[in-house]
Amino acid sequence: MDAKIVMMRSFPDKRGTLSVGELGKEMPFPVKRIYYIYGVPSKDIRRGYHSHKALRQLCLCTSGSCTMMLDDGKERCDFVLDSPDKALYIGPGIWREMYDFSEDAVLMVLASEEYSEDDYIRDYDEFIESKRD
Amino acid sequence: MDAKIVMMRSFPDKRGTLSVGELGKEMPFPVKRIYYIYGVPSKDIRRGYHSHKALRQLCLCTSGSCTMMLDDGKERCDFVLDSPDKALYIGPGIWREMYDFSEDAVLMVLASEEYSEDDYIRDYDEFIESKRD
Repeated sequence: MDAKIVMMRSFPDKRGTLSVGELGKEMPFPVKRIYYIYGVPSKDIRRGYHSHKALRQLCLCTSGSCTMMLDDGKERCDFVLDSPDKALYIGPGIWREMYDFSEDAVLMVLASEEYSEDDYIRDYDEFIESKRD
Repeated sequence: MDAKIVMMRSFPDKRGTLSVGELGKEMPFPVKRIYYIYGVPSKDIRRGYHSHKALRQLCLCTSGSCTMMLDDGKERCDFVLDSPDKALYIGPGIWREMYDFSEDAVLMVLASEEYSEDDYIRDYDEFIESKRD
């Protein structure tokens, strides 16, 4: 599966912690869009339900925690994002669902491209079909 | 002063809130580095104390709050970042100090360039001198 946990570089000192992600190191692409999800009212909420044809993303919980379920049509993996320095890289062609948001969770997503509805697959059967091409 | 508050686009619904910043809209540059500050142990901590020669940044508190004091050599302004959808654009040549961090504050900074120590001015007198050129 074209997905992996990426640890950000962290520099804790008596003033707090500074974590860094840099192009060519932790960040595999220049970021053209960010979006972030917060105020998820219940652990029962499940979001996502789509894949991208070309978009690459780097996801992290800057506070709190959530779980990302990734599915590449062959296998399904759960990734728990429960520390600010723990990011998840997601390549193209992966179905994702996010769940188990803590009350204080902020899920930040750094995206390689600007928004394009044409890049989304929002139907799971269509996603599976795209994997057979 | 080459700095301003930028409101991210926000989409609240019963599943929580999604906020977006996109290149050419809220985000004036492709992001080549992110860094974020958290776990600041006390409201008395003051950080920053530098300016950049060329770097541009977009700063936001994804949770909690802090205040950024900006100084362009002519005027000083305080910007309170107290909502996840409220970002602060900072152009080049501005001295900054961050303070009044809440316990849960996460200050996320999106930067236009990769790290370069040559781009920093870390001495206030030198900063003021640079403004006379």
